[in-house]
Amino acid sequence: MDAAEFRKRGKEMVDYVADYLEKIEKRQVFPDVEPGYLRTLIPDCAPQDPESFEDVFKDIEKIIMPGVTHWHSPYFFAYFPSASSFPALLADMLCGGIGCVGFSWAASPACTELETVMLDWLGKMINLPEEFLAGKDGQGGGVIQGSASEATLVALLAARTKTIRRVQSEKPELTEADIMGRLVAYTSDQAHSSVERAALIGGVKIKSVPSDDTFAVCGSALKKVLDEDKASGLIPFFFCATLGTTPCCSFDKLLELGPICIKENIWMHIDAAYAGSAFICPEFRHLLNGVEFADSFNFNPHKWLLVNFDCSAMWVKKRSDLIGAFKLEPLYLQHQHQESGNFIHWQIPLGRRFRSLKLWFVLRMYGVTGLQEHIRKHVRLSHQFEHLVLQDERFEICAEVVLGLVCFRLKGSNELNKALLESINEAKKIHLVPCHLREKFVLRFAICSRTVESTHVKFAWQHISQLATELLKTWEQNHHQQ
Amino acid sequence: MDAAEFRKRGKEMVDYVADYLEKIEKRQVFPDVEPGYLRTLIPDCAPQDPESFEDVFKDIEKIIMPGVTHWHSPYFFAYFPSASSFPALLADMLCGGIGCVGFSWAASPACTELETVMLDWLGKMINLPEEFLAGKDGQGGGVIQGSASEATLVALLAARTKTIRRVQSEKPELTEADIMGRLVAYTSDQAHSSVERAALIGGVKIKSVPSDDTFAVCGSALKKVLDEDKASGLIPFFFCATLGTTPCCSFDKLLELGPICIKENIWMHIDAAYAGSAFICPEFRHLLNGVEFADSFNFNPHKWLLVNFDCSAMWVKKRSDLIGAFKLEPLYLQHQHQESGNFIHWQIPLGRRFRSLKLWFVLRMYGVTGLQEHIRKHVRLSHQFEHLVLQDERFEICAEVVLGLVCFRLKGSNELNKALLESINEAKKIHLVPCHLREKFVLRFAICSRTVESTHVKFAWQHISQLATELLKTWEQNHHQQ
Repeated sequence: MDAAEFRKRGKEMVDYVADYLEKIEKRQVFPDVEPGYLRTLIPDCAPQDPESFEDVFKDIEKIIMPGVTHWHSPYFFAYFPSASSFPALLADMLCGGIGCVGFSWAASPACTELETVMLDWLGKMINLPEEFLAGKDGQGGGVIQGSASEATLVALLAARTKTIRRVQSEKPELTEADIMGRLVAYTSDQAHSSVERAALIGGVKIKSVPSDDTFAVCGSALKKVLDEDKASGLIPFFFCATLGTTPCCSFDKLLELGPICIKENIWMHIDAAYAGSAFICPEFRHLLNGVEFADSFNFNPHKWLLVNFDCSAMWVKKRSDLIGAFKLEPLYLQHQHQESGNFIHWQIPLGRRFRSLKLWFVLRMYGVTGLQEHIRKHVRLSHQFEHLVLQDERFEICAEVVLGLVCFRLKGSNELNKALLESINEAKKIHLVPCHLREKFVLRFAICSRTVESTHVKFAWQHISQLATELLKTWEQNHHQQ
Repeated sequence: MDAAEFRKRGKEMVDYVADYLEKIEKRQVFPDVEPGYLRTLIPDCAPQDPESFEDVFKDIEKIIMPGVTHWHSPYFFAYFPSASSFPALLADMLCGGIGCVGFSWAASPACTELETVMLDWLGKMINLPEEFLAGKDGQGGGVIQGSASEATLVALLAARTKTIRRVQSEKPELTEADIMGRLVAYTSDQAHSSVERAALIGGVKIKSVPSDDTFAVCGSALKKVLDEDKASGLIPFFFCATLGTTPCCSFDKLLELGPICIKENIWMHIDAAYAGSAFICPEFRHLLNGVEFADSFNFNPHKWLLVNFDCSAMWVKKRSDLIGAFKLEPLYLQHQHQESGNFIHWQIPLGRRFRSLKLWFVLRMYGVTGLQEHIRKHVRLSHQFEHLVLQDERFEICAEVVLGLVCFRLKGSNELNKALLESINEAKKIHLVPCHLREKFVLRFAICSRTVESTHVKFAWQHISQLATELLKTWEQNHHQQ
C-alpha cells in the first residue's frame, strides 16, 4: 500500500470509525459468540500473497464486530470507563504517523519534553503540590505509564531499592536477601489485585489492611498492623493507598495515613486510577487532601479524562528515587543530553509511543471546563441511578455514591443477586459486572460511555427493575416448593 | 468535537500523515533543538476553554516537528528499526475506534481470540515448534507484550516461581527468602540491558556469561559459570539467550546452550527482538535452530515486520507456567468463560489495546512474500554498505554482517572514532549511534526505514567517507603538532 492508497483507505477508515461510534447504541452491547468462535472463521495461517484492503475491511464486520464487547456503548455500565474521544483518536493517528520511540531525549526530544510539560499541566489541573511537578528545575515530575499496575510496580520497586539501601547503611551486617525477606508492603483489603501482583513481582511480602465500615483504610488500622509486624522483626516499607477503590469507589483516609507513613519511613503511593480525573473539579478536590504526604501518585486519564488507552499519569516527588531503582545505561542509549528527561529509568518497558500527544489534543480541545462538564455529567447520572434504586424498596445501596459508581443489590441472598446479574447479562441489553463487599455479592453500575445520557440510565433501571420482578416471582415459587 | 467534525478532521489528519511520510526525506533527520526548547513554546497550564482543532493542528509544525527525530527517514540508521506501514496505521485507527480493553475473554472476545490466532499465524511463519502454538487445545501459545523488556521480565518471573516451588518441594526446610537469595539468572555479556533490569526487578542475582570472539555465548562458557555457581551453593534458574544482540547482531549458540539448560533445570528464554522477523525467510531460519530447547521465545514485529509499535510477540511452551506466576483473580474480573484466553496472567499491565488488529492487517495486506521482500531488501542494503566499507582501507568491519546491521570503524583509536561519530551526528544528514565491542568504540549502521533504498545507503557512505577524510586531515595535523 502506497501513500496514495493510504489517503483513500485512511479516509474510509475515518468514516468507518465515525459511523461505528455514532451508531454504537444500535449494536448489542455484549456479543453472542462462544469461546473459540473466531478460529473457525479465519484461515489457519497467514496468506502467502497480499490480500486487498477491501477483503480485510469487509472482514471487520464479519469476523471482528460479532465478538466485540462495546465499551463505548451508552448501555455499557461494567468495570470502570475506558476513555474515548475524537481529539484523542486524532492525536493517536499523528502518534502512529510520527512513529518515534521516545525512550530518551535524543531518541525524540519532542516526545520526551511534551510528556513532561503535559504532566505538569495535568498536575496543576488537580492542584497537585508543587513538589510533584517538574517545572524548570524541580526534583519531582510526571511520566506516562501504560497502566496503573505499572505505576504501582514502579513505585514499589523504587521504595524497595530505597529501603534496602537505608537499612544496609544502618545495619551493614544484613545482606540484601536478609532485608528482602523482611520487607512488607501494605494495602487495603479493598485494593486492586495489581497491588498484590506488584509485591509478588517484586518478591516482597504484602499484607491487607482491614478497611472500616465505609470500606476505607483509616490510620489506626494501618498503625495496628505496622506495630505487630515491627514487633516480629519485619520491615514495613511501602503503603499503597487507594482513592476510589475498584469494588465500590471508597477513599482511604490519607490525612491519617500520610503522617504515619512519614514517621515510619514508609513510601506512600496513591492509586487513584479511576477517581483521579474527578479532582479537576474543585468540588471533588478535597478527596485528594493528604497527597502532600505521598511519595508518588497515579491516576488514569485513559479511564475518565477522555484520553484513549493507554495513558496512566504518574508523579513522584523525587525523580532520583525512580532513577536510582533502575539505572543501567549501555553506550547505545547514552547521548550528550543525558540528564534531560530520560524516561528509560522511569518505567518497565524501554520503548514508548508518543502518548503525550493525546493529552495535548484532549486538554486543549476540551479545555478544563469541557472536561469538568464530562466528569460532572457522569456524577449526576450516577446519583440519578442511585435515586431510582432508593425509591424501590426491594433494593439497597451498598456503599456511598461519591463519583460515577453505584453499588446496589436486591435485599436478600447472594444467590438471588447472582441470579439477577445473570438475567441482566443474559438479556444483553446492558452490561454490568459484580463485586464482593465483605460477605455480600453486589452489582456495580458504573457510568462509562462518553455519550451516556439520562435516558439510558432510566432505561437501564427500568430493565433491571423488570428483570427483578420476573426473578422474584419465580424465586418465591421455588422457595415455596422447597 | 462531534462525529461530523471528526470525519473532516480525521481526513485532514490522514493527509497530514501521508504528506509527512511521503516527504520525510526532505526533513533533517535529527532535530536542531536544545533541551528545554518545548517548554518555552507553550503555555504553563492547560487552557480553561476549548481551543479549535485548527489552533492545535498548526502547532504540530510549529512546536512538535522541530523536536522530532525522524525514525522513518531513509537517512535514519540508528538503534534498530521501528516498524511502520500504512496497513498498520489503518489497523491502529480501528483499534482506537473500538477502544476496548481486552484483559479477559469477556471484556472483548474478538480482541483475545484474534491475538491467539495471530500469534499462531506468526509462529507458523517462523516455523516455531508446534509446542509453542495454542492451536485448538495446545498447552503453549503466544501473547502480545508491549516490549521485549516485558517479555523477558515475564519469563524471568515465571521461571522464578517455578524454581521456588520445585526447590521448596525438594527441600522443605528452605524458606522462600532463602531460595530467592540463592537464585541466579544468566545472560550474555552482549545482552540488552533490559535483561539485567528484569533480574533487578525480580530481586534475583544475574551474571554475565562471556561471549566468544564472534560475540556469541557458547555452551562451554555457560557450563563453566554454572559449575562454579552450583559449587558455591547458588541455584541457577534462568538463561536469557539472545539472537541478534543489540551491539552487533550476534547469535548465541542455542544448539549448545539448550541441552545444558534442560539438563540443569534452567528456564531458557530467547530474546530475538530485532532478528526474529528475519526468520520468516527460509534462508535465515537456521539461526533459530535450537528454539526447541527453549521455554519461551520473543521477537518484536514492531521492529522489523512493518507492525507499528507496540507489538512484541512472545510464546511459551506451557501457558500454565505464566499463569502460575501471577494468578490472582478478584470477582470483578471473573466470568463464566474463565479458561478461554484470559491474558490477565500473561503480562504486567492489566489493560491492553486491540493490538492484534495491526498484525492481522499487516500479515494479510503484505502477505508472507511481501514481508520476506522487506527483510531481504534490508539485508541486501546492509551488505551493500559492508561492501563499501571493505573497499576503503581506512576502515574495518567489526562483526560479521548477518542481517541489517553493520558494525564498522576507522582503523585507529577510540577517540578518532568518537570524533567521526560526532562529526556525522553534528552534520545531521544521517543519524547513527555507537556501541562498544570489547574495548573498541564502534559505529553501528542499521538499515531502518521501510523506504530506504540503495541510493540512500550510497549517499550515507559517501558522506561518512568525506567526513572521515576531513577528520583524518585535522587529526594528523594535531598529532604532528603534539
